[in-house]
Amino acid sequence: MSQFWSPLVHRLTPYVPGEQPKLTDLVKLNTNENPYPPSPRVVEAIQAELGGDAARLRLYPDPNADQLRAAVAAHFSAYDIAPAQVFVGNGSDEVLAHVFMGLLCHGRPVLMPDISYSFYPVYCGLYGIEHRAVPLGEAFDIRVDDYRQDAGGIVIANPNAPTGQLLPLADIERLATEHPESPVVIDEAYIDFADDPMPTAIALVNRHPNLLVVRTLSKSHALAGLRVGYAIGQAVLIEALERIKNSFNSYPLDRLALVAATAAMTDSAHLDATRRAVMASRQWLTDAMTEMGFEVLPSAANFIFARHPQHDAAQLAASLREQRIIVRHFKAARIDQHLRISIGTDLQCRALVDALKSILNP
Amino acid sequence: MSQFWSPLVHRLTPYVPGEQPKLTDLVKLNTNENPYPPSPRVVEAIQAELGGDAARLRLYPDPNADQLRAAVAAHFSAYDIAPAQVFVGNGSDEVLAHVFMGLLCHGRPVLMPDISYSFYPVYCGLYGIEHRAVPLGEAFDIRVDDYRQDAGGIVIANPNAPTGQLLPLADIERLATEHPESPVVIDEAYIDFADDPMPTAIALVNRHPNLLVVRTLSKSHALAGLRVGYAIGQAVLIEALERIKNSFNSYPLDRLALVAATAAMTDSAHLDATRRAVMASRQWLTDAMTEMGFEVLPSAANFIFARHPQHDAAQLAASLREQRIIVRHFKAARIDQHLRISIGTDLQCRALVDALKSILNP
Repeated sequence: MSQFWSPLVHRLTPYVPGEQPKLTDLVKLNTNENPYPPSPRVVEAIQAELGGDAARLRLYPDPNADQLRAAVAAHFSAYDIAPAQVFVGNGSDEVLAHVFMGLLCHGRPVLMPDISYSFYPVYCGLYGIEHRAVPLGEAFDIRVDDYRQDAGGIVIANPNAPTGQLLPLADIERLATEHPESPVVIDEAYIDFADDPMPTAIALVNRHPNLLVVRTLSKSHALAGLRVGYAIGQAVLIEALERIKNSFNSYPLDRLALVAATAAMTDSAHLDATRRAVMASRQWLTDAMTEMGFEVLPSAANFIFARHPQHDAAQLAASLREQRIIVRHFKAARIDQHLRISIGTDLQCRALVDALKSILNP
Repeated sequence: MSQFWSPLVHRLTPYVPGEQPKLTDLVKLNTNENPYPPSPRVVEAIQAELGGDAARLRLYPDPNADQLRAAVAAHFSAYDIAPAQVFVGNGSDEVLAHVFMGLLCHGRPVLMPDISYSFYPVYCGLYGIEHRAVPLGEAFDIRVDDYRQDAGGIVIANPNAPTGQLLPLADIERLATEHPESPVVIDEAYIDFADDPMPTAIALVNRHPNLLVVRTLSKSHALAGLRVGYAIGQAVLIEALERIKNSFNSYPLDRLALVAATAAMTDSAHLDATRRAVMASRQWLTDAMTEMGFEVLPSAANFIFARHPQHDAAQLAASLREQRIIVRHFKAARIDQHLRISIGTDLQCRALVDALKSILNP
């Protein structure tokens, strides 16, 4: 507390990210990173940009990120997306921050599920936006009928986090149709891990001017360490985000992140191979844990959300930690008996199952 | 314009950065980049972090940037700065944005020079902060007596941009002393190009709890392409910035930027060699242009601010552009007859002088 702080600062409740341990011998299944490396094109692109002496780093990057926006648009050419429909930022967290400030400050409450990405209410606190938490159903399902109320905007993670559950595209379209005057933001951080045909709301943006889809390269493209996210919608929505960005930081993406993300977006084969590997491991882990008595929610993400009827979740997480495996436990209403477990390599999944067996049957 | 935009978005007047041309055969003297490459340690650090396959990029970076903050603190060990007194961000533009939001929103006007970094009033627009422009003197000098008025905060670039003029440290201290209840922010983006002894306000922060110094690695460390800036002040000021940052984006600096910036901060010899080279070229260019009849302001930065009594500045800039040399011209009151010219390599400075001679004496 200080007289020098803006009054707002006293009121903030900042987001708490998952632990990023400095130890390297942990099985790290707590922040939904990809267990596989990024596309080999990423390292090639970075090397080309670096040259021998990194001399190009003395020059500012392209403030408009034209090449990256073109690569993102090309990746979604099946949905007829133009570069002017793409906004890029320093991780989807920065993109989301600009979305809350630029598209969701309307003096009416923003609706979001009561259990979802816990950064959403933090953004509301930062920008003075009222929000209303809409309870998930008993099975942690999003019921779009419950969103039929006055809204300055709607924010839905799909698949939802930390539940991993997927909302069908028809429900997203209903949300957009039933709130024609409110921005509807779909955070698809994890959607590349959903079954084909890919149920992305990007397929809907050209017929719904109020629909914006937010994505990240942190998960399916294995680039959490590089901080690149993007949003796709009709150009007028993107213009709002550009105006915020150009009033905040002209150059949010550095030269290496720009070329690396551009390269990653062009390598669809690598994306497909790693997402399929993760999906197969997810199935194996779900089966193995179900057999041990866990209740595992059906997941369309690179994590599963599970509880054991006879074992306290916090205790399980602590016991796993003793075996050098870290998973995520949320001390929050309704979900404090669940664990969110990122899908690792097959070796890591097996290590987790072995550890759980030793904890359940000591 | 759109019904989906937050009302704020309609009111914004975004910042316009200097041109980043995609052509490579230009003599680019318009955005104050360093003409020399960064420290060789930068490329080594990035290579070590990349490894052969960039596998580490799949993992989130350290959200607290502990190593970089320690390196910055160590760089300023002469002033007894602790890591908890260091805030780091995605370029000093992001740092400044958080400063305006977290330390300068007090319902009273923020004071700043009428001629200074034009992003300051943009931040005020973004966060709804009233500001008051305090006119520079006839010689473009900052007169601290003029700041004796009610202030929610004061922001001074030192050396000032685009004038390049340095305010003595004693004047900074007077500002801090005379406004004990207001944050005083000194933006030292260019101060490494000032003559020794280094007149940095970092020397003052431990005795002035209201003083915050903002810096960037874009200029003197030749890392504009990597986007790293920082702020130094007493820990309670830094805590305000951390609270904003953790309500905005947990991981603003990517893995490569973190290791590169850390490496750059440790190489004081490289910093010193390149800053001295730039300062020598600045002297040579100042002399050469003065001889041609230009009035050149004394500069403590890596640019000069100059006018020619007989030649229109916009016309001069256009003529230089025809010869593939780009400099910065501001269409703004009081300075529209000046050019801001970044200090290039000796070859580039000579090319500029030759071009100006051919324009002035065709």
